Amino acid sequence: MPQSATANRHLVLVASPKGEPTADTFRLESVPVPTPGPGQVLLRTLWLSLDPYMRVRIAETDGYMPAVKPGEVMVGGTVSEVVASNHDGYQVGDLVQSYSGWQDYAVSGGEDIIVKLPKAAKQPSLYLGSLGMPGFTAWYALSQIGKPKAGETFVVAAATGAVGQIIGQLAKRAGCHVVGIAGGADKCSYAVKELGFDACVDHRGADLPARLKAACSSGIDIYMENVGGPVFDAVLPLMNMNSRMPVCGLIAHYSGAGLGGADRLPGFLTEALFKRMKIEGFIIFDQYPAHYGSFLAEMTAPIEAGAVKIREHVVGGLEAAPQGFVELLGGGNFGKVVVKVA
Amino acid sequence: MPQSATANRHLVLVASPKGEPTADTFRLESVPVPTPGPGQVLLRTLWLSLDPYMRVRIAETDGYMPAVKPGEVMVGGTVSEVVASNHDGYQVGDLVQSYSGWQDYAVSGGEDIIVKLPKAAKQPSLYLGSLGMPGFTAWYALSQIGKPKAGETFVVAAATGAVGQIIGQLAKRAGCHVVGIAGGADKCSYAVKELGFDACVDHRGADLPARLKAACSSGIDIYMENVGGPVFDAVLPLMNMNSRMPVCGLIAHYSGAGLGGADRLPGFLTEALFKRMKIEGFIIFDQYPAHYGSFLAEMTAPIEAGAVKIREHVVGGLEAAPQGFVELLGGGNFGKVVVKVA
Repeated sequence: MPQSATANRHLVLVASPKGEPTADTFRLESVPVPTPGPGQVLLRTLWLSLDPYMRVRIAETDGYMPAVKPGEVMVGGTVSEVVASNHDGYQVGDLVQSYSGWQDYAVSGGEDIIVKLPKAAKQPSLYLGSLGMPGFTAWYALSQIGKPKAGETFVVAAATGAVGQIIGQLAKRAGCHVVGIAGGADKCSYAVKELGFDACVDHRGADLPARLKAACSSGIDIYMENVGGPVFDAVLPLMNMNSRMPVCGLIAHYSGAGLGGADRLPGFLTEALFKRMKIEGFIIFDQYPAHYGSFLAEMTAPIEAGAVKIREHVVGGLEAAPQGFVELLGGGNFGKVVVKVA
Repeated sequence: MPQSATANRHLVLVASPKGEPTADTFRLESVPVPTPGPGQVLLRTLWLSLDPYMRVRIAETDGYMPAVKPGEVMVGGTVSEVVASNHDGYQVGDLVQSYSGWQDYAVSGGEDIIVKLPKAAKQPSLYLGSLGMPGFTAWYALSQIGKPKAGETFVVAAATGAVGQIIGQLAKRAGCHVVGIAGGADKCSYAVKELGFDACVDHRGADLPARLKAACSSGIDIYMENVGGPVFDAVLPLMNMNSRMPVCGLIAHYSGAGLGGADRLPGFLTEALFKRMKIEGFIIFDQYPAHYGSFLAEMTAPIEAGAVKIREHVVGGLEAAPQGFVELLGGGNFGKVVVKVA
């Protein structure tokens, strides 16, 4: 059932999953294409972004934003084409980055349109990756919280994920010694050979702490926290004096899993104190008004020129989005996950 | 055995304590008064400061500074009088704030002298309290990390301790709703009636979380973390969006005690993420070169004028310092602990 001009396929949440979601967490339905009212546009989804934060949005309780309720269309960032317009700011044929969700069509008064893509945009899906939310997350975390100095050591987990790829390359451009953590030899090899990381440690092998320590011989000055879990335990003892830890995600804990075992909080706070660490949680959606324009101004040219690369993991068709999301949460993706909807 | 002109009493560490220290953790010895060499002064201790951070300094392993070793004189801040001088910067009779340690006399080349007291200083022991390390800690945490806005809610535990007293009053001057946490009705009453806190919650009573929540009806914007332990669990759920947590101490954990029970770290990091919290550990000893002068310039007048009060808990005599320290760690003090040595 491909995209059509007459039906709007959408994926609704069946129920908030206990533990890890499955493909059956969502249900595909077909409804009529909506009609834009005065001041509205009709958007046709070309690309849908799949991201780890979506796990938080389908939790039983509200997280940093209200939870999606059963029966509601799943939320998500898209690159969409304006196919009808009653809005002065948009013409038929414009491409936009919007939050249309997991569906073929959406009407919008413009409030969920992040940016209109330049006519010259060569690869629109970049606006879900290196020029979209993940790239913006990477840039914000590094420039506003991490504040790297040349020669410092920067570490990121999920190193070939959407955020990890970009922030590692940005840290490298800032003169850091960049060490990734990823699952499997292929990903680690890619991080070093294609993305230019100095090293990448496979978290699936034995004795992660020792191998990470060997790769970070001067300790860690900036750790981009986006996973939580056992990786965090390997990182913490290596954190240097006056180190910084932007916290943008905790994928290992989104489904409610802890690590079992003893309470690590006193030890963590002691490290934070003794090492004068700065830990700062942020939700990138807050930062668009103040910073997204600066990000685009600074990064569009180098990204379009290929100086900062992104590997995409393309999922074929809207109907495959639920399975793609499940694989993303399990680390089965290799690169930024985008769904080719149209 | 009072202070004399001919003997130097000092307290040495016997051994790093397992768990809580006792008075026998230190041993009183008497040695000859040292003779200052070229460029040195001889300092006579008038007042010795006792502070929770000292527990860290006698740990088995180095903390944020090298540990005091068995047989070494215990470290500590003092207000001392120059009784002999071969140093151009100091004259006999000058009072100084220094790090002479737990002893009657010390020689110094000036490197451990923090500041010379003004001739007009009315109460020299204030330079161990509101104008000394604890006051500086309070001022730094609030002005450089907490960054209060009028109307925000500020919470501090150990509210009648050396740092708690001062930071609560400073937050009040900044227009905050100030809530203390302290052990016992007397301390809580003092915090409200004498220090001007808006409320103070007794952590010894039942159902601390509910009583703290009632006192913080708009949540918590700034939490000065200086204790750790169960208080932290009551505070965390009340932290607001974009809240700040300077971490200057963890007295509940200095002797290695955990809380038992489940791992609270994933929950903490999730709160930090969802609430966009900023957590920053600092060691005030780092900050003297850059900030202590600004602190004195800003705070000397209001403190000398009594606009910011400090209650002292005076321990009589150097020989009583070990017991005073043990009581401080157990919360048996009521106010800033200073030992009247001379």
